[in-house]
Amino acid sequence: MPELRKDPIIGRWVIISMERGKRPSDFNERAERKKKSTFCPFCPGNEDKTPPEIFAIRSAKTKPNTPGWSLRVVPNKYPALQIQGDLNRRGEGIFDKMNGVGAHEVIIETPEHDKTIDKFSIKEIENIFMTYRLRIQDLKKDKRLRYPMIFKNHGSAAGASLEHSHSQLIALPIVPKRVLEELDGSKRYFNYKERCIFCDIIYQELEDGIRIVLENEHFIVWSPYAPRFPFEIWILPREHHSNFEYISDQHINSLARIIKEFFIRMNLVLENPPYNFLIHTTPINLSDNLYYHWHIEFIPKLTKIAGFEWGTGFYINPTPPEEAAKFLREVKIQIFDEKGF
Amino acid sequence: MPELRKDPIIGRWVIISMERGKRPSDFNERAERKKKSTFCPFCPGNEDKTPPEIFAIRSAKTKPNTPGWSLRVVPNKYPALQIQGDLNRRGEGIFDKMNGVGAHEVIIETPEHDKTIDKFSIKEIENIFMTYRLRIQDLKKDKRLRYPMIFKNHGSAAGASLEHSHSQLIALPIVPKRVLEELDGSKRYFNYKERCIFCDIIYQELEDGIRIVLENEHFIVWSPYAPRFPFEIWILPREHHSNFEYISDQHINSLARIIKEFFIRMNLVLENPPYNFLIHTTPINLSDNLYYHWHIEFIPKLTKIAGFEWGTGFYINPTPPEEAAKFLREVKIQIFDEKGF
Repeated sequence: MPELRKDPIIGRWVIISMERGKRPSDFNERAERKKKSTFCPFCPGNEDKTPPEIFAIRSAKTKPNTPGWSLRVVPNKYPALQIQGDLNRRGEGIFDKMNGVGAHEVIIETPEHDKTIDKFSIKEIENIFMTYRLRIQDLKKDKRLRYPMIFKNHGSAAGASLEHSHSQLIALPIVPKRVLEELDGSKRYFNYKERCIFCDIIYQELEDGIRIVLENEHFIVWSPYAPRFPFEIWILPREHHSNFEYISDQHINSLARIIKEFFIRMNLVLENPPYNFLIHTTPINLSDNLYYHWHIEFIPKLTKIAGFEWGTGFYINPTPPEEAAKFLREVKIQIFDEKGF
Repeated sequence: MPELRKDPIIGRWVIISMERGKRPSDFNERAERKKKSTFCPFCPGNEDKTPPEIFAIRSAKTKPNTPGWSLRVVPNKYPALQIQGDLNRRGEGIFDKMNGVGAHEVIIETPEHDKTIDKFSIKEIENIFMTYRLRIQDLKKDKRLRYPMIFKNHGSAAGASLEHSHSQLIALPIVPKRVLEELDGSKRYFNYKERCIFCDIIYQELEDGIRIVLENEHFIVWSPYAPRFPFEIWILPREHHSNFEYISDQHINSLARIIKEFFIRMNLVLENPPYNFLIHTTPINLSDNLYYHWHIEFIPKLTKIAGFEWGTGFYINPTPPEEAAKFLREVKIQIFDEKGF
C-alpha cells in the first residue's frame, strides 16, 4: 500500500510508493531507453493490455474491452494510490501519515495513436470534458476522497510515459497544496472585498486586453500577470463557477472550441512543445461557493530550470506574459468552422 | 529593468525579465545546441570575460582579474536582478509589482574546469562556505534586500548553463515562498510547543536512525520523512542555529567534511547525477531566532515528472527515503583522512 506522508514543517502531503521502490539503477539513461517500445497498450485491439474499462464511448453494437470505442476510461495499471482500504490516519512520532487510498484512472482520449488535441474534432474534445465531468461526479460519492485531480502530460519531457493521447484522474484523500493556497487566497480576498478575485481579474483583464489570448461567449484564454513559466496560460470561465463538474453541455461546447483554437495557435507558435495541462476546481468536501473559480492551467515545458524552483518557490520567467499573449494572438491560423473544422 | 510581480491569488512573487524577453524560437532545440561551446569564461586566463571580481581567494602576488586565484566571486553577466535603483513598489489595477532590484553573483569554486565537489579538498570546500558567509554579511548591509538565496545547479538537466563548477547568490528584495512557508510552519510549531521543529525532528531521527545518511560532531545528512523527490537529502546543523551567516570556522570545517563524504557517496550511488543544492536560512530583516533552523537542501534531478507537480503542488515519490538513506549509507567508499584526503 502506498503511503501519504506529511511534511511536518510546511504541511505538504506527498505519496511515497512503498512497493515499487525505485532503486538507483532505475534512474539511469539505459533504464530510460529500455522502457521505450513500439507497443501501445492504448491502441484498439490491445484492450486486454489495460485493466477492464470503467467507462467508454463506443458504437452501440460493440462489447466492453473490444475495439469500436472513441474514448475509454480504465484504471491506471500502475496506480499511485489504491482504491481499497481505509485511510487509517496515524502518527509516527512527530510525523503524520495515512494509507495511500484513492483512485487513479486513465482517460484514453482517442483510438488514433498519433492524434494530438489540435487535430481533434470539437465533438471529440467535448467528449473528453464530458467524461471528466462524469468521472468526478461518480468519484464524489466516495466519502474518503477530497479532491479530483485531472491532468494531462504530453511529451516525455513533460512526464508522459506513453505517446498515445491520454489524460489522468487521481482522486485524492487530501487537497493538494497549490489548490489549498488558491482556496485560502481567494477566501481571504472574498472576506475583504466580497467579490471573487478571479472575477475581478477577468473583468480588469478583458478591459485591458494586453494579456488576453482568446475569448468567446463563455471562456477566456489568458496569459497570467505573474506567470512562473514562459507561455504559461490559463483558461477560465467568464462567469463565476466554483466547480468544474457542474459545467453545462453548452459551456463544454464553448470550452472545446476555444481549446481547439488555443492548441492550434500554441502548436504553431511553440512547434508542438511538451506540456502539462490541469484543472483546478473546488475540493469535494466544500460546496459550491462564491470565492473560488475553477480554471485550467496550461504549462509548456520549454525551459530546463528545475529543482532550484522546487527548492525556493522562486521563479525567473524570461518571457513577459504580454509578449506570450501577443505571439499566440497574432499567429495566422486557417479559419475553421463552428461545427468542428 | 526586470520586474518583480506578485500572483494576486496566492501571493507568490516572480521575476519577469523585460529586456531579454525570450521569443518562441529561443526555446527550440536548435537554439539550445547552438549555445553549447567549448569556451569557458570561468577558466583561468579568461578573467576579462566575466565582470570584474567582487572577491577572490588568490596568491598574494597576483592582481585582481588575472590568473592565480583558487576562488572568484563575480557579478552574473546576465543578472536576473539589477543592483541599481529603487524598489518603487506600486499597483497595476488589482496587481502588485516592484522593480527587479537585487544582487546576482557567481561563485566560481575552482580554477579547474572539470573538478566536481567530491574531488575538492576539505580546504576548497571550506573556502566556498566561507565565501558564502562573507558575501551574505556584505549584502546584509543593503537595506533594500530581504533574502540571500544561495544555490548551485550542476548538470544541464538541472539548469546549469556552464559546466565549470560554480554556485550563485541572488539577494532578493522579497522572501521566496518556500522559505516563507517554512518560517510560518516553524513559527506555528514554536508557538505551540516552545521548541524548534527542526531540533525535534533531528532528535527523533537520530534516535531512530533509519533516515540518517551520515552524522558528525556538528551536522547530520538526512533523508527527509516526506521528500518530494527520490534521493532528496537535507544537511542540518545538529545544534540550533537560525542563520547560516553566523556559522563558525569550526562548524565550516565539519560541514566541508560531511559534504565531501556525502558527494562521494551520492556520486557512487547515483552515477554523477545532475543536481540542485540550496541553502535555506533566516531572512535578512529577521533577527537570530529560536524557531527557524538553517539547512541545505540537495535535490538530484533523476525523474522527468514536472509541470504537473508545479501545477498541483502534489508529488509522487517512487523511492522511500528509508531506502535512499540505506543506499547512501551502505555504499563502500575509500577511507579518507581528516585533513583532506
